[in-house]
Amino acid sequence: MTIVVVGSVAFDTVETPYGRADEVLGGSASFFAVAASFFAPVRIVAVVGEDFPKTEIEFLRSRGIDLEGLTVAAGRTFRWTGRYHEDMNLRDTLDLQLNVFADFAPKLPDSYRDSDICFLANIQPGLQGGVLAQLARPRLVAADTMNHWITGARADLERLLHHCEILTLNDEEAKLLSGERNVIRAARRILEMGPKSVLVKRGEYGVLHFSADSVFAVPAYPLEQVFDPTGAGDTFAGGFIGALARSGDFSTPSLRRAIVYGSVLASFVVEDFSLNRLRTLTLDDIEHRYRQFVALTEF
Amino acid sequence: MTIVVVGSVAFDTVETPYGRADEVLGGSASFFAVAASFFAPVRIVAVVGEDFPKTEIEFLRSRGIDLEGLTVAAGRTFRWTGRYHEDMNLRDTLDLQLNVFADFAPKLPDSYRDSDICFLANIQPGLQGGVLAQLARPRLVAADTMNHWITGARADLERLLHHCEILTLNDEEAKLLSGERNVIRAARRILEMGPKSVLVKRGEYGVLHFSADSVFAVPAYPLEQVFDPTGAGDTFAGGFIGALARSGDFSTPSLRRAIVYGSVLASFVVEDFSLNRLRTLTLDDIEHRYRQFVALTEF
Repeated sequence: MTIVVVGSVAFDTVETPYGRADEVLGGSASFFAVAASFFAPVRIVAVVGEDFPKTEIEFLRSRGIDLEGLTVAAGRTFRWTGRYHEDMNLRDTLDLQLNVFADFAPKLPDSYRDSDICFLANIQPGLQGGVLAQLARPRLVAADTMNHWITGARADLERLLHHCEILTLNDEEAKLLSGERNVIRAARRILEMGPKSVLVKRGEYGVLHFSADSVFAVPAYPLEQVFDPTGAGDTFAGGFIGALARSGDFSTPSLRRAIVYGSVLASFVVEDFSLNRLRTLTLDDIEHRYRQFVALTEF
Repeated sequence: MTIVVVGSVAFDTVETPYGRADEVLGGSASFFAVAASFFAPVRIVAVVGEDFPKTEIEFLRSRGIDLEGLTVAAGRTFRWTGRYHEDMNLRDTLDLQLNVFADFAPKLPDSYRDSDICFLANIQPGLQGGVLAQLARPRLVAADTMNHWITGARADLERLLHHCEILTLNDEEAKLLSGERNVIRAARRILEMGPKSVLVKRGEYGVLHFSADSVFAVPAYPLEQVFDPTGAGDTFAGGFIGALARSGDFSTPSLRRAIVYGSVLASFVVEDFSLNRLRTLTLDDIEHRYRQFVALTEF
């Protein structure tokens, strides 16, 4: 099955307790697409500026990612600068320059309209909805969101949720969206808002998956050093959706295995800055760590 | 196999976002002993004051707990008053009256000396060590500790660790004891200090178990309402050690199953104040929730 992802491609400048990286490849669509590309064909819809380097275009292309929907616009690429705390669950945004991303109005090339699976990374929910209108008949729609849209574009988000099979968000966002302070009640409430599956991302504590008839908990892979958590959520989504596309099976057991693949990809990406670890990753590495997840959790 | 537990028996006054309970049965040894009593014979070493009610003595006895080591001393029973935050991972101690517990010098009755398994609940590590000297030849020693002893009685604690097979503690305590800020590195460092197993309790995020050749992660059971988290750690330990005693098997697969039983017991105790939920619990309830843990985690 083919996947289309709509989101950001950016330059990140990141400081963690372990070091610093300047103007490295980032953005939700980049992390998602590269992670998903290990499993299935991926098409990307995003915008970059004229300063976006050919070498990164070549890297994305080398992963088999379809770049027809990657627009190069006059101006500079989206830039984000952040600093992580000693407790890397916390970070401060030091600078944000939307640049060409400020006018991003995702338009799907004709060749993308038959995509089987659509992942709407974290952008304005109205824009996310506009993407769906351009798809012929997707078999699965998944979306990510954040606090900013939950409070600032709630009506658009609620409309979108009626058209999504899967919503991914973190603990705090789930509580904010639902008005519930307990994560299980929060997820149940969100299921009533449209999605058939809610995936709650809990960083170093793993992921909870909720559907009408199943709750699934998978821990994060225990890493001795998390180097840079940037992009872990989008990489998780890429591994998860990628594995679903590879299997073509949306049953609960298949969803669970795909969630573990998402966790595997996320566990790799945080081992280095940007998505550097994914540049050298192999499918063998992925399958090996999948077996380590089995060993980590079986009883 | 028989278990001996050394710890506190207390009256707790607890306020949570969901209500308040005054002078209810608490203390590490109470929670542990009642949880373990579902699986194996338990002997208790603790001290209460003359104000300790006969009805609670009868309750403990009704669970088959051997009370020969429960001393009734002149004075009042240990009292703790605490208030939980909206985020129930946080609590404030509002009042602490050690009373008869201030002079607690655990002395094992002769009939306890042949106990197979010893659980040293969270008391001064010097006293914990003194208990070991009174045991004939325990097959397994497990201990719990806390920040207060890690900083205030470090030498005693380090000595004790050489004689423990299992140490239980929380994330923050593991980091403090090891000087490491990553929980995996922290656990590895603690394994070098003596214990063969380190169990890191992470509250609503579950438990991590580390040994030389295995890492095991189990999530907490997702509860729609945590009513009162008091005693969850000791109840976990009671279910865990109880299940180990029932099986008589200390292999890694058996340890893992026992950790799940500990998680099952902890998931019940937080459903009500004090250990009230355990008063009506049955082995059928326990086995049913154990199967729910399988369903929660299998992929």
